[in-house]
Amino acid sequence: GNPLLLIAGPCVLEGYERSLKIGKQAKEIADKLGLSYVFKASFDKANRSSYKGFRGPGIEEGLEILHKIKDELNVPIISDIHTEEQVAPAAKVLDALQIPAFLCRQTDLLYTAAKSGLPVNVKKGQFLAPKDMQNVVDKLESAGNNNIMLTERGASFGYNNLVVDMRTFPIMRSFGYPVIFDATHSVQLPGGGGTCSAGNREYVEYLTRAAVGAGVDGLFMEVHDNPEEGLSDGPNMVKLDNLEAILKDAIAIHEITKKHF
Amino acid sequence: GNPLLLIAGPCVLEGYERSLKIGKQAKEIADKLGLSYVFKASFDKANRSSYKGFRGPGIEEGLEILHKIKDELNVPIISDIHTEEQVAPAAKVLDALQIPAFLCRQTDLLYTAAKSGLPVNVKKGQFLAPKDMQNVVDKLESAGNNNIMLTERGASFGYNNLVVDMRTFPIMRSFGYPVIFDATHSVQLPGGGGTCSAGNREYVEYLTRAAVGAGVDGLFMEVHDNPEEGLSDGPNMVKLDNLEAILKDAIAIHEITKKHF
Amino acid sequence: GNPLLLIAGPCVLEGYERSLKIGKQAKEIADKLGLSYVFKASFDKANRSSYKGFRGPGIEEGLEILHKIKDELNVPIISDIHTEEQVAPAAKVLDALQIPAFLCRQTDLLYTAAKSGLPVNVKKGQFLAPKDMQNVVDKLESAGNNNIMLTERGASFGYNNLVVDMRTFPIMRSFGYPVIFDATHSVQLPGGGGTCSAGNREYVEYLTRAAVGAGVDGLFMEVHDNPEEGLSDGPNMVKLDNLEAILKDAIAIHEITKKHF
Amino acid sequence: GNPLLLIAGPCVLEGYERSLKIGKQAKEIADKLGLSYVFKASFDKANRSSYKGFRGPGIEEGLEILHKIKDELNVPIISDIHTEEQVAPAAKVLDALQIPAFLCRQTDLLYTAAKSGLPVNVKKGQFLAPKDMQNVVDKLESAGNNNIMLTERGASFGYNNLVVDMRTFPIMRSFGYPVIFDATHSVQLPGGGGTCSAGNREYVEYLTRAAVGAGVDGLFMEVHDNPEEGLSDGPNMVKLDNLEAILKDAIAIHEITKKHF
Repeated sequence: GNPLLLIAGPCVLEGYERSLKIGKQAKEIADKLGLSYVFKASFDKANRSSYKGFRGPGIEEGLEILHKIKDELNVPIISDIHTEEQVAPAAKVLDALQIPAFLCRQTDLLYTAAKSGLPVNVKKGQFLAPKDMQNVVDKLESAGNNNIMLTERGASFGYNNLVVDMRTFPIMRSFGYPVIFDATHSVQLPGGGGTCSAGNREYVEYLTRAAVGAGVDGLFMEVHDNPEEGLSDGPNMVKLDNLEAILKDAIAIHEITKKHF
Repeated sequence: GNPLLLIAGPCVLEGYERSLKIGKQAKEIADKLGLSYVFKASFDKANRSSYKGFRGPGIEEGLEILHKIKDELNVPIISDIHTEEQVAPAAKVLDALQIPAFLCRQTDLLYTAAKSGLPVNVKKGQFLAPKDMQNVVDKLESAGNNNIMLTERGASFGYNNLVVDMRTFPIMRSFGYPVIFDATHSVQLPGGGGTCSAGNREYVEYLTRAAVGAGVDGLFMEVHDNPEEGLSDGPNMVKLDNLEAILKDAIAIHEITKKHF
Repeated sequence: GNPLLLIAGPCVLEGYERSLKIGKQAKEIADKLGLSYVFKASFDKANRSSYKGFRGPGIEEGLEILHKIKDELNVPIISDIHTEEQVAPAAKVLDALQIPAFLCRQTDLLYTAAKSGLPVNVKKGQFLAPKDMQNVVDKLESAGNNNIMLTERGASFGYNNLVVDMRTFPIMRSFGYPVIFDATHSVQLPGGGGTCSAGNREYVEYLTRAAVGAGVDGLFMEVHDNPEEGLSDGPNMVKLDNLEAILKDAIAIHEITKKHF
Repeated sequence: GNPLLLIAGPCVLEGYERSLKIGKQAKEIADKLGLSYVFKASFDKANRSSYKGFRGPGIEEGLEILHKIKDELNVPIISDIHTEEQVAPAAKVLDALQIPAFLCRQTDLLYTAAKSGLPVNVKKGQFLAPKDMQNVVDKLESAGNNNIMLTERGASFGYNNLVVDMRTFPIMRSFGYPVIFDATHSVQLPGGGGTCSAGNREYVEYLTRAAVGAGVDGLFMEVHDNPEEGLSDGPNMVKLDNLEAILKDAIAIHEITKKHF
């Protein structure tokens, strides 16, 4: 029965000042509620719907910003990597590596990330059955890494829609590792905006409470002080003003479900 | 913030004695936990996978058994109807009418059921988007009936599998009527047993907690003292011995979510 | 290697004159191309999205109109039935009975229809795996009827969308009965129009050629001289002016595939 | 109205001798039938279900083998690349680059591949709506490359199953580039074998005829002289002995459909 882990931050780094501001607010809320907090932001959105979408500062500048945020906030940092080459520089700054959903079956990326010795959080592909994440776990374990997290972010449900199958949580937990619910990508409507993904922020609170009811070890949320201004995933990021209320319910439900863990 | 409603009983009537025994146990648990209880059993399984599947006692004998159970347990009774002709005799005995999922768009059946003046509980078809239940509601309201319940029992997800989309609950609640989660049909694997449906009873507790976390007004569960012996839906009915524990968690989570109602 | 069967007509009977006109044109095209032709129109649309949708003339007047069309055009007639009670009157006029997709698992309806001795065409439910139509076939055979047709009209694919899985045709053909492709309902977007179903008529020709490529025994198409004016399913009915060209390609492809039958 | 393109070969390079043998046979069949032929084999299977799955000879040895096959058979060669680094060495040997489905939204990989100036064939992700391939096309065109092919290989349909939506072909053709049907990956059952993907080779012929009926510019097939011995994708590769018959039907149907192009 550990407290919930909270992984939160802006979808993509939007400069040091704004990213710090968002992280600071998220940390304050996590501290107040007694949650472990990890700051998350991407330095590069490598698979935007459109090539015109904002991609972020890139790995070099991005890792610098993340380093400064880490020092300033004194919190662990996670970010997503997309190539084997990114593992080494990222591992110098980050406290955990994240594998994007589309890349969750790329054997070399998984293996190289696992070899870093850092905790690795893998997002389940939208195209993957929950039980098939066992193969992903095996790939990571084969590199001698047992510090694994598995994240659900929705499964393909027809076109331009995702569904969160709550059976996913007990199935993935049965592999022996913590399971995270990515509440904001799960409400994406992929490609729903033509050249970008649309989303339904209003369902975040419902899906969060449901997932914690099913039983998770942590929550992943992209947050922003003003999501309408967000440079990526605006339609599904949670407004920081709403974060505390959502988490309070989640914590209360987690108190009920965690006895089953 | 009403207490959760519990609709429970064996899938199909299995004779007066056994059905009564199951209903009695379910009522005792509901009473103990402070839940409103409605007994449910089908007198006819009109759409079994195979024509060889057990169908129940039929409407005449079935309504007699239900009447006796109602008198003996002093609880309201709900059962499903399949034709307009069944509405009148059923309405003499039952306290609420239920429309099966496959029939949820049959205009005349909905209208005739609504005209009875009894509460009508409609199961959302596996083929229907949550928002499209508004049209079902309109059909019932057009008959002057505003005593409506809407039940989620899973949506088609590929072949021989269902998924419960937790967005369904807030969407259907927005129509202004109580929303029920059918926890046992939602874990069916339709046709998964060749000439019958398979099921995964082990997920009932997870989906129940998740649905209550998302926010529902009631739970529907098929229960049995010995599901392995059940004459219909054995693989997904809940063992009565496990019912109290599942409901306790549900009630505790409902306490947290019901403030949003 | 029989020629393709063509089942075609307006979605719903729109009065004798217009229905006859449509049937006459369809028959002329079928005759010209050497296809067996069956006239189809519904006397009642029993499951419209909205209760305000046009339902047709009803069974009594509808069967009269169908009888007159049958006499006038000298073609066999098929129409869909929704209750056991409709079987007897319908069987006096119709040459074949059709079971709607939502009702494809209603045991009594299937049995009663089969007992009529008429050929029975069952549309596969949007929620059903192709292999599970074997159970439907068993139900019909149990009534001593071996004059069966099975029709594909799309499977649920997320919300408000259908997909035609071309594996359906060889799977259903393996049961030993003719298999029909319903080209116009397969392009429906169920509920896509809010209070009615939207549709994509422009894909009819592609799906028809594909289905015939996979291998079918017949085609089902709702046709209209002016689909925009159609009282039901306008968005997916085929304009009669386009029917011949679509069928010509279908016949040419059928010549290639039928050697596998 | 061009003749169909045939992209075929073993799923993964299985040594020079066997790969050559397979390519030679495929070429002979293509020549006999008047099809343009491109040899395809992977040098690395970078996303096998399990890390124990055979991955192939790697890029260095793999490109050597491909070079020798190209010289020996005098045919163009296509192979899939997984990282930007692979583009330059691959472009020295290959005649076209292929982007795997899971990687179809990786902007840098697409851009770098397109910058090579070689034709680029992108497989549509199992998680992508057909219309969203327009964004993929835009990414390639932004690199100044207009030599593009788009390949359908099935869309996620529940868990461990794919469905080929035949509407995909006209939708993707509307972008102005040739569209290919990958007939063998489309019959995969992803993860269906636990630590590997299962498949249904028997549906290849049906789906091929259907896709050509809908309208495609080419076919992609993994072929093998003895698929049971294949080191990857055995359950869905086509036996070379059956290739000619499948292609003959495809060509005949293409003759009918290509007039619409």
